[in-house]
Amino acid sequence: MAVIPLGFQFAGARCGLKNKRNDIGLLVSDREAALAGLTTQNLVHASCVDYMRERIAGGSLRAMVVNSGNANCMTGPQGVRDTRRMAQLAAEALGLQPEDVGVASTGVIGRLLDMAKVESGIAQAAASLGPSPKPFLEAILTTDLVEKEASATAGQARLYGVAKGSGMIAPNMATMLAFLCTDAEVDAPTLQGLLAEAAERSFNSLTVDSDTSTNDMVVVLANGASGYRPTEPELRNALNEVCVSLARQIARDGEGATKLIEVVVTGTEDPKRVARTIADSPLVKTAMFGCDPNWGRILAAAGRAGVPFDPTEARLTVEAGGEEHVLFEGGSPAPFDAKRVSTALKSDVVRILLYLGPGPSATVYTCDLGYGYVRINAEYHT
Amino acid sequence: MAVIPLGFQFAGARCGLKNKRNDIGLLVSDREAALAGLTTQNLVHASCVDYMRERIAGGSLRAMVVNSGNANCMTGPQGVRDTRRMAQLAAEALGLQPEDVGVASTGVIGRLLDMAKVESGIAQAAASLGPSPKPFLEAILTTDLVEKEASATAGQARLYGVAKGSGMIAPNMATMLAFLCTDAEVDAPTLQGLLAEAAERSFNSLTVDSDTSTNDMVVVLANGASGYRPTEPELRNALNEVCVSLARQIARDGEGATKLIEVVVTGTEDPKRVARTIADSPLVKTAMFGCDPNWGRILAAAGRAGVPFDPTEARLTVEAGGEEHVLFEGGSPAPFDAKRVSTALKSDVVRILLYLGPGPSATVYTCDLGYGYVRINAEYHT
Repeated sequence: MAVIPLGFQFAGARCGLKNKRNDIGLLVSDREAALAGLTTQNLVHASCVDYMRERIAGGSLRAMVVNSGNANCMTGPQGVRDTRRMAQLAAEALGLQPEDVGVASTGVIGRLLDMAKVESGIAQAAASLGPSPKPFLEAILTTDLVEKEASATAGQARLYGVAKGSGMIAPNMATMLAFLCTDAEVDAPTLQGLLAEAAERSFNSLTVDSDTSTNDMVVVLANGASGYRPTEPELRNALNEVCVSLARQIARDGEGATKLIEVVVTGTEDPKRVARTIADSPLVKTAMFGCDPNWGRILAAAGRAGVPFDPTEARLTVEAGGEEHVLFEGGSPAPFDAKRVSTALKSDVVRILLYLGPGPSATVYTCDLGYGYVRINAEYHT
Repeated sequence: MAVIPLGFQFAGARCGLKNKRNDIGLLVSDREAALAGLTTQNLVHASCVDYMRERIAGGSLRAMVVNSGNANCMTGPQGVRDTRRMAQLAAEALGLQPEDVGVASTGVIGRLLDMAKVESGIAQAAASLGPSPKPFLEAILTTDLVEKEASATAGQARLYGVAKGSGMIAPNMATMLAFLCTDAEVDAPTLQGLLAEAAERSFNSLTVDSDTSTNDMVVVLANGASGYRPTEPELRNALNEVCVSLARQIARDGEGATKLIEVVVTGTEDPKRVARTIADSPLVKTAMFGCDPNWGRILAAAGRAGVPFDPTEARLTVEAGGEEHVLFEGGSPAPFDAKRVSTALKSDVVRILLYLGPGPSATVYTCDLGYGYVRINAEYHT
């Protein structure tokens, strides 16, 4: 069971922006909360991203209003007005000022929001605030198959986070949408620094299809309701734990995915770049879908990453189904039982370990590429 | 009908390296030919790539021996010996010196060549040399569905080229395998310069799945048999024509592809980088497979290319089925008939035109991403 921080309430409502599930969500703190956040680096981005950058610069917030089903992106001046109107509607319903409310949107790009629906959804949601995050969790999903949440403690303070995302996932300074809240006492600049660190090893180490979304953001609200001021290591560990857990859940729920793949590269001047190039390779991802220990594709992807290394020094192993198999070592293919490795690769979690020399490691989270990805993205009509 | 240059002969034989088709090919000039070539920039590459770099530095060649079905890559010292042995066997069969013979391989990575099969294949091929390139064309294919050839004239000289490739296609300084021959009189350094130019706008403007192969190479042999020394513009035009034609054929035959997609970007400091990011986007490629005018994905990919531009200035159109449709213009979605555009996108060739401001254009060739890509690459077992 997730542990929910003190002083936060949640709500979700269904107003018809998407077909069958809640599509408007509210996350509300009962007092002013320090705010930290990261937003997409995509030049092409939604007006809610610009709006949130102002809020994050301000460093405090009371509530987030989120809609799914429509990204309100590339919608011109009307889209900008609609973002501000969402904040205003939520503020009125909650008895706050518009600048106390953050806004996030996710869904189809390039379509104007149906503001009559949004207005009714916000009113419904505000009337149903409560301690359970479930209705909010559902409200932020698009093609996600599962809800994603994680929690941790930072000393006597609690940290809880939710995320959505399964396609257009190769975040740059943030992921699709992730909302974290904590009752820790912490100032906004410290929180911002620790969030950036945690994002670097979680959401920014995540790729489903190498596409950076226009609406990515991760925000954390810290309202101090626990009365406890965690040490930096306590808060860092809690943030890392929750963010890495959410990133792994997003990768596992990647569009059409049948498994979570963790690519761990050790050595070279930029192990993360090598790991990301492997994780983004359609040939590696389809081999994993086919449970095929086609190590040539893994090394070939590493070799095009633009990072120098000596291929003859490479040692490549896979860990899956409780087994570890060496595939390449000492400049030559390792003798391995292809059938047995293939069976192991049917596992829900596969770790690809590439050692290229001494030095630090980096881990990138991804998933396989199967028919489901094509089905979802060829048939998801605009 | 392709025009074949004077003084060249071709052969293909089936020795069992792959299942059903010719898998050893010979291309032979009746006299010494100037040689130019480009090879993969992948750090992880086959021994034939190192071997060809020596030949290209030498600047002349008499023959190429090529096998498909096995890339002879990451096969250690034995792989290096096998590459040299292929040259030696071909040289003996043709009455040449081993250093007169170039070697190329394509197929599965990481498996030793069956040299008994290779030896019998080379002997068979050498015994069947003739004027038709067809047996050679077949011998270089792997997952290709169609043979790829093109020809042009450079004044009174003839240029002919063949290529193979349909997966692991995002060449860097070369494509999968392309072999060109001409009876023009030209020195190796001039030929090398013109080939590099032509490759930049053809093979290096080509992507199927963003994976750079370990065995990429393009070579051109110029034997002067026509007695004609073309002007540089004549030879440049002929090389560009043949290389662009082969690159388009490779993109059209991309694994699982149903159509050729040409992405033309105008403006910005690096239009080719923007075009390549769009062409590599799995979300754009699956939308094209689904005949879905999902322009948000195209702009979102452009926005993450790392090249500055003003999204509100963007003008995006598609050309397909003889129609041109504006999708986005003046900072807002353009009104278009989605059904009609979707029907047009069923066309065999689709051009995506993105105008980001004044300046030069770049074209990148790619294909859509459909179920066939997954089938081929998940079920192509090592």
